[in-house]
Amino acid sequence: MKENEPAKGVWPPAATPFHADLSIDFERYIAHCSGLLADGAHGLAVLGTTSEANSLDQGEREAVLERLIAAGIAAENLLPGTGTPSIGDTVRLARHAASLGVRGVLLLPPFYYKGVSEDGLFAFVSEVIGRVGRSNLKIYLYNFPQMTGIAWSPALVGHLIKSFPKTVVGLKDSSGDVAYLDRLLESYPGFAVFPSSEALLLAAMRKGAAGCISASANTQAGAIRALYDGWQGAEAESLSRAASAVRNLMQKFPLIAAVKAVLAERTKSPDWARVRPPLDPLSPAQRKELSAELSNLAAGAPA
Amino acid sequence: MKENEPAKGVWPPAATPFHADLSIDFERYIAHCSGLLADGAHGLAVLGTTSEANSLDQGEREAVLERLIAAGIAAENLLPGTGTPSIGDTVRLARHAASLGVRGVLLLPPFYYKGVSEDGLFAFVSEVIGRVGRSNLKIYLYNFPQMTGIAWSPALVGHLIKSFPKTVVGLKDSSGDVAYLDRLLESYPGFAVFPSSEALLLAAMRKGAAGCISASANTQAGAIRALYDGWQGAEAESLSRAASAVRNLMQKFPLIAAVKAVLAERTKSPDWARVRPPLDPLSPAQRKELSAELSNLAAGAPA
Repeated sequence: MKENEPAKGVWPPAATPFHADLSIDFERYIAHCSGLLADGAHGLAVLGTTSEANSLDQGEREAVLERLIAAGIAAENLLPGTGTPSIGDTVRLARHAASLGVRGVLLLPPFYYKGVSEDGLFAFVSEVIGRVGRSNLKIYLYNFPQMTGIAWSPALVGHLIKSFPKTVVGLKDSSGDVAYLDRLLESYPGFAVFPSSEALLLAAMRKGAAGCISASANTQAGAIRALYDGWQGAEAESLSRAASAVRNLMQKFPLIAAVKAVLAERTKSPDWARVRPPLDPLSPAQRKELSAELSNLAAGAPA
Repeated sequence: MKENEPAKGVWPPAATPFHADLSIDFERYIAHCSGLLADGAHGLAVLGTTSEANSLDQGEREAVLERLIAAGIAAENLLPGTGTPSIGDTVRLARHAASLGVRGVLLLPPFYYKGVSEDGLFAFVSEVIGRVGRSNLKIYLYNFPQMTGIAWSPALVGHLIKSFPKTVVGLKDSSGDVAYLDRLLESYPGFAVFPSSEALLLAAMRKGAAGCISASANTQAGAIRALYDGWQGAEAESLSRAASAVRNLMQKFPLIAAVKAVLAERTKSPDWARVRPPLDPLSPAQRKELSAELSNLAAGAPA
């Protein structure tokens, strides 16, 4: 892949492990990220919702990128989230990321004020692009209205693509709204659209999606990679069913805490289960239930 | 007032003027803040929603406080907003504010993740208080679920007051939910509760409110001060009607833009009307309508 090509494939939004004092456990984090790439991830959508990026401070968000690159992970395999409610803070994070040579940045809409206009959102993105002032900045819009209260409407996405064709190159959709996803895929061929769930991946690939950025890819990157590689093959449906079953099971629980609980169990490291406030870890009962259901699934028992 | 007494009275959330390049116009800002105090404001709830604080970057939020204090405004007359979605960034802003000796800080809940638990919110506040580590930190919870998607429930407020009685001393309610306001006033006597509208002030004062922190106080601080001073007097109802009429008219428009449009007209400085994206200024037609209706009101015509 050339650096300037839009991202494709499986880009897990890597979860962020914390020490008991809530600081980032970089050793564990780098091992996890390296493991995801070894399992078949094409790259890492670090510093997203699953990564608890909005619970990290700005210095930590910068440090995450610097530490991963220092550990030997190629910057072109990183797609960090850099969204904040303000132009200035967003520019700081996006400029830093672009200066390191990342593949692109995921951009949330400014998520404090609600009921803002499409003109206002357009002006925000335009200011960010102009102030970052780097031609290697590639923006992937990050649509998650359940968290932000604000959607990147298909019309606004089209306006942004037309106005910044070399910069606004993709979108991650966490809304779960298949009609929205389909409309983007139909309207903007070549625009790199990523659903946020492997359960939507096969259908989306058939309509031209670029891949997927899924929380549960933290626990089954290899299975999703197999589905991505095999979506046109004879095994596509069964690969999709298997990956989707894990996803659907996990999202019966608070998803970020569930991802971390699975990682804690697999690595026999209870520390992995820790989340930063305001999130809560799974309760012991939830952990037990999730673990049992995942075991049943692996054993081929009915879900 | 002693520094450690809870704030009382009229604390306008001072609007923030911007230059054409969107940088803060500190000269105009300091003049506006000084004018509000001269008009009778007891202090300034700077860096709130009306101030577009969440559209400022962190360095700007710190600079605002430093510049106001350098200009001679007493730190004890400042009640800045320091809320962000992360513990670390919130601690940075709150510690900086406390180190300058402000009266207290307004604390939004961490507003990215939705559906978080009361335990999670409690843990967030607890971490912030512990990490700021300054006994002069006074927290006023800032309730604005229309923007944050998260409310400080009366039960959680009670839990915080009980756990941090010297630190969690008040609350600003921007929800407009009178039943919520009443419940806080009834449940926690002595807790400094501020409604966000002068239209609610008289009824709230009768139930023990501390004062008000209202966007439209940027344009009628003197009238609200008169109401605050006279709420037990013979003129209370007429003072309330007059102040409420202005407020009710203004909130028919996008309120932040409306506040700035009024300031632009009064000071004959069109620059005052500028807002940062994602907000939009009023349209020319809206400005004209607002101006005409305010003139009618001042002339005593039926609204």
